[in-house]
Amino acid sequence: MKNDLNILILSCGTRNKIVQYFKKELSGKGLIIATDSSGLAPALYEADKYFIVPRMNEEGYLECILSICKDNKIKAVLSLIDPELSLLAENKKAFLDIGTIPIVSNPEVIEKSFDKYKMYEFMIQNNFQTVKSYIDEAQFYNDLETGDIAFPVFVKPVKGSASINISKVTSKNEIKMLFSQFDNLMIQEFMDGAEYGADVYIDMLSEEPVSIFIKEKLKMRAGETDKSVSVKDEKLFKLIRDFVKKADFKGIIDIDIFKVNDAYYISEVNPRFGGGFPHAYECGVNVPKMIINNVSGNVNENVIGQYNEGIYMMKFNEVKVFSHKLLSTGGRR
Amino acid sequence: MKNDLNILILSCGTRNKIVQYFKKELSGKGLIIATDSSGLAPALYEADKYFIVPRMNEEGYLECILSICKDNKIKAVLSLIDPELSLLAENKKAFLDIGTIPIVSNPEVIEKSFDKYKMYEFMIQNNFQTVKSYIDEAQFYNDLETGDIAFPVFVKPVKGSASINISKVTSKNEIKMLFSQFDNLMIQEFMDGAEYGADVYIDMLSEEPVSIFIKEKLKMRAGETDKSVSVKDEKLFKLIRDFVKKADFKGIIDIDIFKVNDAYYISEVNPRFGGGFPHAYECGVNVPKMIINNVSGNVNENVIGQYNEGIYMMKFNEVKVFSHKLLSTGGRR
Repeated sequence: MKNDLNILILSCGTRNKIVQYFKKELSGKGLIIATDSSGLAPALYEADKYFIVPRMNEEGYLECILSICKDNKIKAVLSLIDPELSLLAENKKAFLDIGTIPIVSNPEVIEKSFDKYKMYEFMIQNNFQTVKSYIDEAQFYNDLETGDIAFPVFVKPVKGSASINISKVTSKNEIKMLFSQFDNLMIQEFMDGAEYGADVYIDMLSEEPVSIFIKEKLKMRAGETDKSVSVKDEKLFKLIRDFVKKADFKGIIDIDIFKVNDAYYISEVNPRFGGGFPHAYECGVNVPKMIINNVSGNVNENVIGQYNEGIYMMKFNEVKVFSHKLLSTGGRR
Repeated sequence: MKNDLNILILSCGTRNKIVQYFKKELSGKGLIIATDSSGLAPALYEADKYFIVPRMNEEGYLECILSICKDNKIKAVLSLIDPELSLLAENKKAFLDIGTIPIVSNPEVIEKSFDKYKMYEFMIQNNFQTVKSYIDEAQFYNDLETGDIAFPVFVKPVKGSASINISKVTSKNEIKMLFSQFDNLMIQEFMDGAEYGADVYIDMLSEEPVSIFIKEKLKMRAGETDKSVSVKDEKLFKLIRDFVKKADFKGIIDIDIFKVNDAYYISEVNPRFGGGFPHAYECGVNVPKMIINNVSGNVNENVIGQYNEGIYMMKFNEVKVFSHKLLSTGGRR
């Protein structure tokens, strides 16, 4: 059947735009189906069909998702939240066995992305400029003496999403206090420069980066890019191509980069659609279409840098309203 | 001329929905015009016409706004940010002299809303249940001894918007430290209960509250209501009616309320469109239409409680993109 290219988006939350973009691309080809553990996830109501499912850490979650995939002839599945990326990556075979392709990197790559110190070590080993990082207090004090690092610095959990629990620190005493109170902390150099975000698609078949969209972040809000402007830079395109190839990413990823004194420093990677992806899409960078191409068996052409510079993106709040009755229909529209 | 009912929204920022709602109501009757000091305010681009103006605290700001009103035959002006409410209220006559009606309460009422301790005193004097508050440290320690108040408490600036700089405090030492470091602090009882928001319209001609929409807040994000559900309660409608009449509010206001052990406590008032107003509008509570009625010389009917209960509102991010060229046209579309 030609209209059987169904795609499942897990933990859709408030990412309405992502669901809308897939729905548009799938029109006439298949359905976009969404899940969330809460009926108050507005993106559910953008999908052709939705399911309210258990929380990811509840027993039977994986079986529930697999059965949704089977029952709905899901061709590809992706998640919009970090913890679920490991679940998809680790259970790739179970999905492939029922004909569903998880759009995700390999488990080791996902794990490396979520451990900021592992990612730091990887970048140092491979000669990519990055943000100087320490997990060893003594090493940090030593470098402080020699002038290899200076205050202010950031102290953050080695594993942790967005800007949760990040402290800007200006003295040795504060460092000592934080390290005595919490485990698994990391000290990171404060980067005094512009922040960039890159939305990168690495073709699932050719394993080559085929699309890179770069934006300078102009304003953040609640840990997300609120305003940004599209930029192009061949030097940064090349750095990103080399980095994602070496690190073995696949599918859609989001990279945070600093620019200090005209040099680029890769900061971290979210191996999924980033919160700022709508900027790329609205500039014509159609990643949903690339995913659909891949799961239809087609390799994507290289379109790196095929967008306009100087396009500004500004977010604002849109609202969905739904009546009590609709929410209580048991998770199925 | 019949299509001459032009309305100006100042400091529109990211409040795209408010501009959209006015534009819809004004269709065929007049234009909606918006201003902001930044070309990256996405709500500008929803308006029929926009101006990028100086910052509110820059010299000549008032003259600039008055001249926009005059040149564009503005019938009514309103602002979406707190500091500007005082400016509109204090210069009401200058606007009225050129035929523009500021949709705002009187200066004393605005001032009372922005000074949380003044508002507290007003509520105590008028027997409205409210959140126990202290500006006097000694008085607080005394009440702590007698058991009239207990930890945790909130410490916040007497004047201050949203949840900026609010600390939850659990010890006398922390209170002492905060009071020694900062001026103009207030200690507030911690309310362990549900939070409600009320969008209230007090008719500018009859000076009677004619519309009250109540929502229970289910989730906050960056100081704003992110998810809420509409509720109705005659007891709360009556409390709000009495309160806004006694406090002499006019136009559109937003009230924060706590419910603890089945009793309501008025917490604070924003004498402007609140960030959660789209919930009210999407439930049929059409305040832009009420404002248009008033500035056309018509008194609004009482529609208090004329909406459905159990309607859920969920926010998500929408995006606007604009090219560099459009932003640099000098503030005029």
